[in-house]
Amino acid sequence: MTEITRRAMLAGTAALAALAASPALAAAPQSGQQAPGFYRYKVGDLELTQLSDGAGTFPMPDHFVANVSNETAIAEAAKAYLAPAGKITVPFNPVLINTGSKLILIDTGNGAGPNPAVGRLLTNLAAAGYSPQQIDTVVISHLHPDHINGLHTKDGKLAFPNAEVLMPQADWAFWMSEENAAKAKEGMTKNYFTTIQKALADMKGHVAMYGWDKEIAPGVTSINTAGHTPGHTSFAVSSGKDKVFVQSDVTNIPAFFLRHPDWHVMFDNDPALAQKTRHRFYDMAASEKAIVVGYHFPFPAVGHVEKDGAGYRLVPVSWSGVV
Amino acid sequence: MTEITRRAMLAGTAALAALAASPALAAAPQSGQQAPGFYRYKVGDLELTQLSDGAGTFPMPDHFVANVSNETAIAEAAKAYLAPAGKITVPFNPVLINTGSKLILIDTGNGAGPNPAVGRLLTNLAAAGYSPQQIDTVVISHLHPDHINGLHTKDGKLAFPNAEVLMPQADWAFWMSEENAAKAKEGMTKNYFTTIQKALADMKGHVAMYGWDKEIAPGVTSINTAGHTPGHTSFAVSSGKDKVFVQSDVTNIPAFFLRHPDWHVMFDNDPALAQKTRHRFYDMAASEKAIVVGYHFPFPAVGHVEKDGAGYRLVPVSWSGVV
Repeated sequence: MTEITRRAMLAGTAALAALAASPALAAAPQSGQQAPGFYRYKVGDLELTQLSDGAGTFPMPDHFVANVSNETAIAEAAKAYLAPAGKITVPFNPVLINTGSKLILIDTGNGAGPNPAVGRLLTNLAAAGYSPQQIDTVVISHLHPDHINGLHTKDGKLAFPNAEVLMPQADWAFWMSEENAAKAKEGMTKNYFTTIQKALADMKGHVAMYGWDKEIAPGVTSINTAGHTPGHTSFAVSSGKDKVFVQSDVTNIPAFFLRHPDWHVMFDNDPALAQKTRHRFYDMAASEKAIVVGYHFPFPAVGHVEKDGAGYRLVPVSWSGVV
Repeated sequence: MTEITRRAMLAGTAALAALAASPALAAAPQSGQQAPGFYRYKVGDLELTQLSDGAGTFPMPDHFVANVSNETAIAEAAKAYLAPAGKITVPFNPVLINTGSKLILIDTGNGAGPNPAVGRLLTNLAAAGYSPQQIDTVVISHLHPDHINGLHTKDGKLAFPNAEVLMPQADWAFWMSEENAAKAKEGMTKNYFTTIQKALADMKGHVAMYGWDKEIAPGVTSINTAGHTPGHTSFAVSSGKDKVFVQSDVTNIPAFFLRHPDWHVMFDNDPALAQKTRHRFYDMAASEKAIVVGYHFPFPAVGHVEKDGAGYRLVPVSWSGVV
C-alpha cells in the first residue's frame, strides 16, 4: 500500500514537488546504543540522580530464593515477565546526591567487567555530567561485591580518588575479620569473605566508619536494616519537608521479594532477621506513602510501595521529562 | 561526623597526601536537566525507539472519567501516586521504527508550546540521533490533537518535511467533514473539530489514507481499535518471530483505564465501543503475553499486560542498559 499511496500523494500538489525532485532519503543506520541510564529529581533543595550500573541477566541459580523451590521461582519470574524462561534479571542502581556544595554517592556498582550490561556506573555518571574526581563522599550501604566493586577502576586505582569513603561499622567489622572468614562455611559465604577482603585490602585506614541513626552526610541519615548483612544500612535522604528512603537491599528484585516479603534471597546473611526487617521497613514506607529508592528495582528504581494482600507492590514513579 | 571522619581518614596514610594537599573540591552545580527521554529495543530486525513527548500535569478535569465521580477518580489518582492531590499526569509517547532502510514514526505528540513538560518529541528525537528530515513515514493513529499537533513546527512548517503522512481513513472522513463539524454538540467535541481541521488544513491532498488489517509500512500492520475515535487504530509491529502491539489510545493512563477497563475517558467518541475494544484488545494481549506500547503509559511506555481481577495491570519492562 505504501507505494501506491506515495504515488497518489506525490500526484497531489505542487507543495510536494521538492520531495518528488529530491533523491531518496539516505537510510539512517540503526543505533544499537541505549539512552543514558540516569534520572534526576528533586528532594527539597537536594538534586538526586539515579545512576544505572546496568542489569545482569543470568540463569536462575539453584535456591536463588532460598526457601521456595526453583520451579516456583522460575514460574514467578515468568509471571513477572522478568527474562527469558529460566533466567532472571537483576538491576543495580547507585544514587548520587548533589546538595549544591557536595556530591554524595551511595554505593558503587559492580565495577567494569567483560559484560557490557553491567558495570555502567562511570559511563552513566559521565552522561549525567559529573567526573569521578568530583565526588566528595562515597557511602557504602553494605559490603557485598555489587556495592563495593565499583570503588576501584579496572586497573585497581581508586575510582573516586578525592572522595572520603564511609562504611557501615557493623559490616566492616563482620566482613573484614580474618576470624569470621576462617570459620565461614564453604560456598557462597566463604567466597564473599575472600572477594570482599580482596576488594577492600587497600582501603584499610582509608575509610571512615558510620553507625546507625546518624546524619552521616548532609541530608543523609543512616537506618538500621540489618539482616541482609550484619551492617546492612538504608538511608533517609531529606531536605525541608521532602524525604525519600534509599532502601539498599531490604529486598532484592521487587517482583520476588516485595510481592513475597517472606521469601529469602540466597544472599541474606540472617534470613529471619532480613524478613522481619522487610516487613518493618515496608509497613513504614507504605503507611508514610514514602518514596523508596531500591538498588535492585528496575531503573530508574524510584517508586512507592503499596500493600497488596500478604505482600507489597512497587508503583514506579512516572518518568518526568523535567526535573 | 563527616568532619571528624575526614580528619581521621586523612591522618591515615600517605596515599591520601595528595588529597590533603589539594584544595577543596569545587562544588558541582545542580544540573536541573533531565536525561534524554528515549529508549531503544529490538523487535526482530527492527530497532524501535520510544520517544517521550513529555507528560502533562493538570487539575483533574470534571468528568475526566466520564462514568465515575470526580471524587472516585481523584481517590484513584492518589492511590496510584499519580500527582499532587486533585491533579493528574498524562504522558505522551510516540514511537520510531528503524527498519534499517526506513524510519517510520507513529504519532507526533503535542507540538512545541509554552509548557516545557510537553512537546518534547523533536528534542528527544535529536537526542536519539535523528533529524526530522530523515523521517520517511509518519503514521497517525487517530486525529486527536495530542497525536497530530507535532506534524507542524511552532512557525507552521511541516515538522517532518520529507515524510509521507499516513492517516486512518475512517478518522479523516469523520473529523475533516464540515457536515460532522456543523452538527457536533457544543463543547469538547465541537472544539476538537475546530482544532483538528485547523491543524490539518494545509495537509489536504498531502496525506495518504490507510485502512485496517493491512501492512501500511514495512513491518507495521493496522488494527481496528475503533471507539476512542471512529478511525482509532492500533498497530502490530513485527519482524521474524518478534512482535509488539502499539496500542495507541485503547486506554488513556493505565492506572485508571487498564485497572478499570469499564471506566470511560472523557475523550472517547463512542464510549461503549471503546470499552468493548479495550476488553477485546487486552484479553488478546494478556493471552498472547504480548508486549504492548501505550501512548499514554509512563515512559518508556513498554510493558506486558496481566489480568488482575476484573481489570488488568501494566507490568513495565525492566530498563535495559543495552539494546
